[in-house]
Amino acid sequence: MPLGGNSGRIVISVDAMGGDRGAAAVVAGMANSAARNPDIEFILHGPEAALRELVSHQPSLAGRCQIRNAEGVVSMDDKPSQVMRNGAGTSMWSAIESVRNGEATVAVSCGNTGALMALSVIRLRRLPGVNRPAIACLWPSRNPVGFNVMLDVGADIKAEAADLLQYALMGASYARNGLGIARPRVGILNVGTEDHKGRAELKQAQDMIAEATETGNFDYVGFVEGGDLPSDRVDVIVTDGFTGNIALKTGEGTAKLVGDFLRQSLASTIASRIGSFLALGSLKRLRQRIDPRQVNGGVFLGLNGTVVKSHGSADATGVSAAIKLAFRLAQSGFQDRLAARVASVASAGQDAVEKASEDGTAV
Amino acid sequence: MPLGGNSGRIVISVDAMGGDRGAAAVVAGMANSAARNPDIEFILHGPEAALRELVSHQPSLAGRCQIRNAEGVVSMDDKPSQVMRNGAGTSMWSAIESVRNGEATVAVSCGNTGALMALSVIRLRRLPGVNRPAIACLWPSRNPVGFNVMLDVGADIKAEAADLLQYALMGASYARNGLGIARPRVGILNVGTEDHKGRAELKQAQDMIAEATETGNFDYVGFVEGGDLPSDRVDVIVTDGFTGNIALKTGEGTAKLVGDFLRQSLASTIASRIGSFLALGSLKRLRQRIDPRQVNGGVFLGLNGTVVKSHGSADATGVSAAIKLAFRLAQSGFQDRLAARVASVASAGQDAVEKASEDGTAV
Repeated sequence: MPLGGNSGRIVISVDAMGGDRGAAAVVAGMANSAARNPDIEFILHGPEAALRELVSHQPSLAGRCQIRNAEGVVSMDDKPSQVMRNGAGTSMWSAIESVRNGEATVAVSCGNTGALMALSVIRLRRLPGVNRPAIACLWPSRNPVGFNVMLDVGADIKAEAADLLQYALMGASYARNGLGIARPRVGILNVGTEDHKGRAELKQAQDMIAEATETGNFDYVGFVEGGDLPSDRVDVIVTDGFTGNIALKTGEGTAKLVGDFLRQSLASTIASRIGSFLALGSLKRLRQRIDPRQVNGGVFLGLNGTVVKSHGSADATGVSAAIKLAFRLAQSGFQDRLAARVASVASAGQDAVEKASEDGTAV
Repeated sequence: MPLGGNSGRIVISVDAMGGDRGAAAVVAGMANSAARNPDIEFILHGPEAALRELVSHQPSLAGRCQIRNAEGVVSMDDKPSQVMRNGAGTSMWSAIESVRNGEATVAVSCGNTGALMALSVIRLRRLPGVNRPAIACLWPSRNPVGFNVMLDVGADIKAEAADLLQYALMGASYARNGLGIARPRVGILNVGTEDHKGRAELKQAQDMIAEATETGNFDYVGFVEGGDLPSDRVDVIVTDGFTGNIALKTGEGTAKLVGDFLRQSLASTIASRIGSFLALGSLKRLRQRIDPRQVNGGVFLGLNGTVVKSHGSADATGVSAAIKLAFRLAQSGFQDRLAARVASVASAGQDAVEKASEDGTAV
């Protein structure tokens, strides 16, 4: 049965394989989303017989999930270069293909990040004007929406000034469409907020980003520090993928450490055990607020199509959160808006180059 | 009265000025340390009359604190380059001078980090064989001693492979003498643990550090990720000062965010307020465990003399923690041990070069 018969529905392409918990967790997450959201449909990629069995047990997926057979699986240990050569026939490849040929708007996978990015780049191709695609993550913050956006968190280990400008444009577009922030505030991650601090490419990016605020429809707040990542003075933090990846994992690791220490402390005396029992509801809310499953989904930006990377260890709750994010981005027409924004700045830059050469001035 | 009459006592040089809370917090911290530690004496640098007044109110400092008049103050906004030119006559300069001329073993300052490093480098000079000095911090961890060491966290924004090797040697020496870890485990901070991950200089550093384990008396555990910073699989994490600074501030910011969210959650219902009252002792212990004041003190490594940088916002508790760390390092003979360790590896490297050139082989 072809999907999309219900014209209001949005189709998400899902890679069933490659996550640590297997296809069962993925299908359970899809079922959670389908039960809560009548406007969503799926194309699910993986070994057909096994998937058909799993889907048949989920009433909410009835008539809303097409299965595409793909026997191959990309494992967490596969190198991106191998997957690029031999990846055809895997569920990951197939999931991206559905976005490539327009059957689905966004793809979701729990698989190997490096392989997913490599396949996304070769199959979807970069947007015109984008040199380095990026992975954007959501970061729990003191902002009213509860999150900031940080990118790049690991697509590439370096970024030039022009790449950081594109991250600013793409991150701001993501914050508008994914988080509903009308005019996002953008900052560059650095070792200090003073203008003379940091590496040369950051100072150069600073000038380029400050000039693009009107075309890109964002505000520029200047350099921000590691301590500002969860702050309410910025919505979008741009950085190279090396620094961003380490900041992301450091933040996750620290939150986990504090959580573990809290549990140990509360279990250490009888009074505090009773106390923590009384505070159970509040502690649970805290847990939800900093639970990485609730903010699950790194988004690949800068390609002809949107791909959401879910945590490899995601359970049904985590997968459902990633699908929710994918749906929201698809619904907002994010992909076309992002492409238009990047193109407008690229052409503004081109205009400046042409104007300058007509004027005979140096660019 | 000259100090050091009590031959067992260790003399710490303290910059009274430049912290956010002024000289009163510094003197109060010194008094805390002196009351608990009979083997400590101080040389205190700053405006003499004001300091004499503050010290006179602290019985524990009687006869154990010499004052050196220095009217100038380095402010948090002063640029390091200005301070290098015009810093003579400031309390910070004077505090370093006491280490330079051998009156004191370690200097402690709450002032401007960049200026303190710049003055330390020009007045104390680099250790032979050290290209880039580093700032090492302590990081709350799951290790039995409760901390890991990370360096560089901000002395320099970049580091070559040879610098990372020296950070490994210096960090291991610090972990032995400051934390009492007999054979520290060293790791390099990277975006993944696989050997092919990350930047070229990290792969090169990996080989150099793996070869230096015997001379440096440490174990090498390979690449570690941001999530490993608080882990028990590593004691010393080496990275460039850009990445280290961002990781440090990200960790601090995340711990503060989780703490704030915890407070908000516990205050949100009556039951949880009663619960948190019952758990008060346990929550206090948690707070101490992750309180940055308890781990206060970045240590400057790679100079002819040890300098401890306390947080600018340190109160008496924070200053006292920094002094405790300074005392421990002085008592262990850390400076001489560190210099010997760096020299031995430098000469081993030199031997290898000479041997190779005698053999006619390429190095």
